[in-house]
Amino acid sequence: MSIQSPTLNVSILSKDASALAEEIENSWPTPSTLNICQAVITPEQINTDKVEVLLADPNLASKVIHQCNGLTWCQSTWAGNAPLLNLDKTDYILTGVKGVFGKLMREYVFAYLLQYARNIPAFSHNQHQQPPIWEESPRSPLTGKTLGILGAGSIAQALIPVAKSFEMRVIGLSRSGQSVEGFDKVYRATDLLNFAQDADHVVNLMPDTPSTAGTLNQAFFDALKPHSVFINAGRGSAVIDDALLNALDNNLLQAAILDVFTQEPLPDNHPFWTHPKVVVTAHTAAVSSPEDVASVFVANATRYIVNEPLLYQFDFSKGY
Amino acid sequence: MSIQSPTLNVSILSKDASALAEEIENSWPTPSTLNICQAVITPEQINTDKVEVLLADPNLASKVIHQCNGLTWCQSTWAGNAPLLNLDKTDYILTGVKGVFGKLMREYVFAYLLQYARNIPAFSHNQHQQPPIWEESPRSPLTGKTLGILGAGSIAQALIPVAKSFEMRVIGLSRSGQSVEGFDKVYRATDLLNFAQDADHVVNLMPDTPSTAGTLNQAFFDALKPHSVFINAGRGSAVIDDALLNALDNNLLQAAILDVFTQEPLPDNHPFWTHPKVVVTAHTAAVSSPEDVASVFVANATRYIVNEPLLYQFDFSKGY
Repeated sequence: MSIQSPTLNVSILSKDASALAEEIENSWPTPSTLNICQAVITPEQINTDKVEVLLADPNLASKVIHQCNGLTWCQSTWAGNAPLLNLDKTDYILTGVKGVFGKLMREYVFAYLLQYARNIPAFSHNQHQQPPIWEESPRSPLTGKTLGILGAGSIAQALIPVAKSFEMRVIGLSRSGQSVEGFDKVYRATDLLNFAQDADHVVNLMPDTPSTAGTLNQAFFDALKPHSVFINAGRGSAVIDDALLNALDNNLLQAAILDVFTQEPLPDNHPFWTHPKVVVTAHTAAVSSPEDVASVFVANATRYIVNEPLLYQFDFSKGY
Repeated sequence: MSIQSPTLNVSILSKDASALAEEIENSWPTPSTLNICQAVITPEQINTDKVEVLLADPNLASKVIHQCNGLTWCQSTWAGNAPLLNLDKTDYILTGVKGVFGKLMREYVFAYLLQYARNIPAFSHNQHQQPPIWEESPRSPLTGKTLGILGAGSIAQALIPVAKSFEMRVIGLSRSGQSVEGFDKVYRATDLLNFAQDADHVVNLMPDTPSTAGTLNQAFFDALKPHSVFINAGRGSAVIDDALLNALDNNLLQAAILDVFTQEPLPDNHPFWTHPKVVVTAHTAAVSSPEDVASVFVANATRYIVNEPLLYQFDFSKGY
């Protein structure tokens, strides 16, 4: 005996539309209750009249969402959703993808922190000299250091067990400064400079909101340590680019690992590309696979059908 | 009221002799009970007649230890002690340095595993093209993979919490194959090929004993996976160099990270230096500082004075 559920009419608007459709069809528990009515890759292709439940890349959805009058729920394929949160349409439920980014983010962050801790480039340089150089290069272990994380949400929390396994101290920063399990200390956002002074290395994971834009300015970089590695894997808008470049030129920090930028792709002539202390990765730190996104969508759709609260819901008034 | 202890006559023979002497003097609990009668950096400089307690680099000590007739205890500055264990003088207590290497080793191992997992060289290559390339390069997360550790001792165990924090499965290999806390499985040494087939990446941490020499041969490398990263941070004698080079040339594994070699320094003309899939680090994976060694020495000396069993004692009959 099975409960008869109504059919869910799903529209997909994503660069990965066909992979998402296939993954969802494969993992949907009761096929007769699913109707993927359109799966398209550009905003021009979507029939907005048919949109009820929408699974979409938020940058694409933002171009058509005002015409989607029948929209009740949009499942975004991203973690951050500034393109939709910045609009004035708020008469629908917006959910994001969470939980899948932490596993990738922790590998990204520690790959680069360890690259500097172990001075991999110096050993590589020595190996490739003629004759090669058998020599110890200076290293600076992570053990005993303090990792500062701007943000204290689920992705930030995914870094904690790794940091602890290297016996690092972990501090966070959040709007409220409320304590969060695993952090040795959480600073209030207004206490940013004390946070910066307390950290050896800093990872930015703050979402893109009006209150975070431009907060990583000259005063922030001034407060870092000369050995600090700064990683931006949150949003580019948090960083004042010129302040960071000045700080690097004045040896106020060791290096900057940048995954996100105000303008993406990063323009060819931007000084970040060629600065000797900057590593540019192409917004790839934590990319969700269609499989990951489909699994979050199916979990949420199952809740939607039976009127349970959805996971990873955004609050339009807070902007995250 | 203090207990009157006899004075300990200590000889030091080490490239770090003066730093060791200073560290020991600074941390010795009761100065009147310590007599550092000589602290020298070459075997030629030591007065062997005066040697009772010896703190020494084992490669240097091996040159003079046969003349040290009054020797009762030698604290080595190394973890591995093949230079002394391979001699026929066994009428003294030999202790090593342990516990301090794990913290450095785990950073070395994961720095290189993550370098491949995140494909750092490909992103770096893209960044330095003209014009630069904004592109995702293929990555292969550690999460869900199996880390195989040859060895199951204290340094091997130090890798486990880090591997677990990345949600890796961890298998070990030891002479007995007895289960060890933290390992998902421990293979017997005779089961090496099954171990190799079960692992995604392999770290060798086996000590240099007659039974480990040459065990990492063609059959072993054949059993690895094409995506395997092989790290040798144990002893060079375990690896058949030609078998490893052949395996790399035939894409039987992805890369080899080599810290230790049969002959050190690695000769300038050895093919490891220039092989595109080999990374050479100069026996630097886990180097103990004079401070670390002094702290182990003082802890053991305190036990020696009151006739308590010493820590990290070697068994001449087993060779480790």
